[in-house]
Amino acid sequence: MNAPLTSRTGETFGDRLHRLTREKGSRLCVGLDPDLARIPDSIRRAALEDASDPAEGAATAIERFGRTVIEAVAPFAVAVKLQIAFYERWLSPGLRAFERNARDARDRGLLVIADVKRGDIGSTAEAYAAAHLDPSPGIDADAVTVNPLLGLDGVEPFLARCRQRGKGVFVLVRTSNPSARDLQDLDCDGEPLFLKIADLVARWGEGIRGHSGWSSVGAVAGATYPDELRRIRSEMPWTPLLVPGIGAQGASIRDACGAFDTQGMGALLSSSRAILYPPGDGSIDAIADAAHRTRDEIEAACRLGR
Amino acid sequence: MNAPLTSRTGETFGDRLHRLTREKGSRLCVGLDPDLARIPDSIRRAALEDASDPAEGAATAIERFGRTVIEAVAPFAVAVKLQIAFYERWLSPGLRAFERNARDARDRGLLVIADVKRGDIGSTAEAYAAAHLDPSPGIDADAVTVNPLLGLDGVEPFLARCRQRGKGVFVLVRTSNPSARDLQDLDCDGEPLFLKIADLVARWGEGIRGHSGWSSVGAVAGATYPDELRRIRSEMPWTPLLVPGIGAQGASIRDACGAFDTQGMGALLSSSRAILYPPGDGSIDAIADAAHRTRDEIEAACRLGR
Repeated sequence: MNAPLTSRTGETFGDRLHRLTREKGSRLCVGLDPDLARIPDSIRRAALEDASDPAEGAATAIERFGRTVIEAVAPFAVAVKLQIAFYERWLSPGLRAFERNARDARDRGLLVIADVKRGDIGSTAEAYAAAHLDPSPGIDADAVTVNPLLGLDGVEPFLARCRQRGKGVFVLVRTSNPSARDLQDLDCDGEPLFLKIADLVARWGEGIRGHSGWSSVGAVAGATYPDELRRIRSEMPWTPLLVPGIGAQGASIRDACGAFDTQGMGALLSSSRAILYPPGDGSIDAIADAAHRTRDEIEAACRLGR
Repeated sequence: MNAPLTSRTGETFGDRLHRLTREKGSRLCVGLDPDLARIPDSIRRAALEDASDPAEGAATAIERFGRTVIEAVAPFAVAVKLQIAFYERWLSPGLRAFERNARDARDRGLLVIADVKRGDIGSTAEAYAAAHLDPSPGIDADAVTVNPLLGLDGVEPFLARCRQRGKGVFVLVRTSNPSARDLQDLDCDGEPLFLKIADLVARWGEGIRGHSGWSSVGAVAGATYPDELRRIRSEMPWTPLLVPGIGAQGASIRDACGAFDTQGMGALLSSSRAILYPPGDGSIDAIADAAHRTRDEIEAACRLGR
């Protein structure tokens, strides 16, 4: 640990994540991917009818849907991951919905992860970091996802906010999509690229570990590649993992269990479409049930896995 | 060439870029990085004083500055590259400014490149592609920059729009920042990673070449690494290159010349800060002069380089 960690509460993101997971008995992150074509008819139609233009209507619809989902899942999830693409789709009104849903989630006591996967050169990354991690007029999220392709200087503005303001970052190490193999599996000096990235990310996070031992610099590692996920866990022992891929992307909770340490800690499993769009009427109760069931399945699997 | 190419005008992005470069006698792209702290005092102060809240004021200031720059550089540049981070910094009002500056540039006959560097899994990448390349309520840019780390399925929604609607994409191959080396130079089977990426990108673009021979799938390759830039040019003979790094980032126009083919074609050199914030009073004339001079220097260097 290089430097004292300071934030408003004096708690690092790694510690906060660890504490909330224990307090709430949940390792579930709900991914908020509000796709206009899939949200309940009743919400969509009312919003589009009232709106002055299509983007405003769409943004109102996804904002209302987002708020409903947040309300439904708040008792069961420890975090929500807002996928900004589905908001950015509707440009300026969409970003306003993103901002409001982030606030809705914070008001319900949920950790807010801005799933933005930004990556750019230093001076530009600073603008992204300010937008998503700084207080108003920023989103003030607890953590963001970032893309490591540009190397350390593109990530440093985010790391600075981990050190100084108790924020967190999850760096893409192994994504959950089928084409992840195209680049992430390339052989680099006898190791796949994703393990090289894992080494780098672990080093970036070394100086930002709190009392719990967990770093504020996490990694994204998809459950759709369970073997790779286990290797990532063992090579990054103090790095929290954000694990998408369960549910609609096809991975089982069993597949995702390799993300936990021997104490069942150190990972958030993220489910989006399977919780947002459950079979049936798409009611708030159906969404709450899906979150409740997923939370319980994760807790059971993670006890068995120890 | 796999499939017939269709767009409103029947012209592919690669062909359009080629034609406009010749017609206008310019290979200059101006990078619009409207950093609130650096824009002229007169614009900033007026906008902030009139605004109802700080983000609105900031967004108004950068929008006005962007419009001024576009007006000043339109006679000399063939394209503008709007760096979305400096707009996203101001969230919803910022995105409105982004949208308007994109329209301003199009109205002046400039190619609009949305420098967004997005990269995500397929269903999410579709939302980004729609936001930036589709007509209203999308930005309807001519081209976007994308990050290839997630592989083909994360790029495919952008490629579809190249094939079907005459749009373009510039994929990050070698970025201009100092830490580019962290990942992009890793040795992969005897080749640096960035050349592996170059191979992939060239393949993605093979089926999307127009009559000019140029593909609609381009690559971003920084002028700050002239040797790497020359290797990229020779390995991707039909791939248009978008070359940042001249000016404030330290590369000379000479360094950037390796991006052109033997006919002096196939690349756009992008300068941002050196044109937006010229020494002196920051007047529209100073910005126009900087663009004019840079355009002329590029044209001269590129004739010498043949």
